[in-house]
Amino acid sequence: MSKQIELNRDLGRISSDTMADVVESRLRDYFKKKFFKPGDSLPKELELAEALGVSRNVVREALSRLRMLGMIESRKKRGMILASPDILGVFERVLDPLIITEETLQDLFELRLVLEMGLADILFINLNDKHLHELESIVNNEAKVSEQGFRIKNEIAFHGKLYEIAGNDTLKRFQNMLLPIFEYVLKLEKELVSGKVSHHDLVDLLKSGDKHQFRQGMYEHLKPHFDKLEQMKK
Amino acid sequence: MSKQIELNRDLGRISSDTMADVVESRLRDYFKKKFFKPGDSLPKELELAEALGVSRNVVREALSRLRMLGMIESRKKRGMILASPDILGVFERVLDPLIITEETLQDLFELRLVLEMGLADILFINLNDKHLHELESIVNNEAKVSEQGFRIKNEIAFHGKLYEIAGNDTLKRFQNMLLPIFEYVLKLEKELVSGKVSHHDLVDLLKSGDKHQFRQGMYEHLKPHFDKLEQMKK
Repeated sequence: MSKQIELNRDLGRISSDTMADVVESRLRDYFKKKFFKPGDSLPKELELAEALGVSRNVVREALSRLRMLGMIESRKKRGMILASPDILGVFERVLDPLIITEETLQDLFELRLVLEMGLADILFINLNDKHLHELESIVNNEAKVSEQGFRIKNEIAFHGKLYEIAGNDTLKRFQNMLLPIFEYVLKLEKELVSGKVSHHDLVDLLKSGDKHQFRQGMYEHLKPHFDKLEQMKK
Repeated sequence: MSKQIELNRDLGRISSDTMADVVESRLRDYFKKKFFKPGDSLPKELELAEALGVSRNVVREALSRLRMLGMIESRKKRGMILASPDILGVFERVLDPLIITEETLQDLFELRLVLEMGLADILFINLNDKHLHELESIVNNEAKVSEQGFRIKNEIAFHGKLYEIAGNDTLKRFQNMLLPIFEYVLKLEKELVSGKVSHHDLVDLLKSGDKHQFRQGMYEHLKPHFDKLEQMKK
């Protein structure tokens, strides 16, 4: 982390909060303090504006933000209710490699490595024959073509399937969202480097190895990335 | 994943998008299509309203959302510019265990297990003597007290330090945000179950073991959680 970034984070910018920021944060605190639960009816826009002593426009702006986060919903006849936000939906909106800083892109790429290495345990809890067949057909597809764009697609299909097998919907969606980031970072490299353990080898390890052997195989598969990381940190 | 949730996701709810939703999405597309980069000046509110044929209020509402996401900033004299969003800042706003569904809480708890198991590789790349001293002092603190609330705090301090050592700012912040979730799930359990490998043992493994031994130790440390997971999936 650069010194400037560290300073920015530790010191915190003096915010020129708009009224909408203030109202948004006030509403958030109010929901917490009153232990509102998903499904509970919320006060009307006009009531909120009066209680806060601000214009209806400002309240509408703040509510619009909470609606975007999925924290509130409007129901016919019932008015506004508190909702269970889709925690990843909002994440998706900001994960654009073109506007994220390079430092964050690198962090997310590392995060991917951590996830792939940590996946083995829950992967082996769920793994069944159907999964193995699906992985095999991805690998067989791959053997046929060597064009770079296609290889990246297959790389994504293979690793995506592993997350799917792990059976955790949030994790799977999270990885799906990170894909454009990985793809972007991979495209920055001149060629698609791969360790000495191939996808084909990994499927073999899933079939007849244990989770330790699979994890070691995954490490070898990702080794060029880990090597690069080691060089950077030195 | 329950059938209803799967159906909801696959089919997708017919949205009663407000005008702000439409304008927000239109602006997002426009930035992408025109390859706007962080720092680029954006058209004025009034110009956008005219181009879109909507009221200024609607544009203001949509811009307010993008501002909340950190995607745009207002600069004195320069007007609005596109910005690099703080990708985790927005995530933080929705990670409230009281409003997240139980299914997502469970997913996030599993995600934590995956991260802890996957951390070993980048942990060992960064580890130095200073880190070991810091971990030791956390562990020594822990030996002195057995009160449950304190133990949870120490649990968090110990694992948080591991993420810090990994040297990935995004990952560290991500784990920090997930803490209230873990704490919430841990409090649901009657007692703080721990595997036969303690934090103390884990520090020893960091000092004199290799990353494979450390990872195996971490698995044993987290084993009660993995066991529970295995039971649930059966």
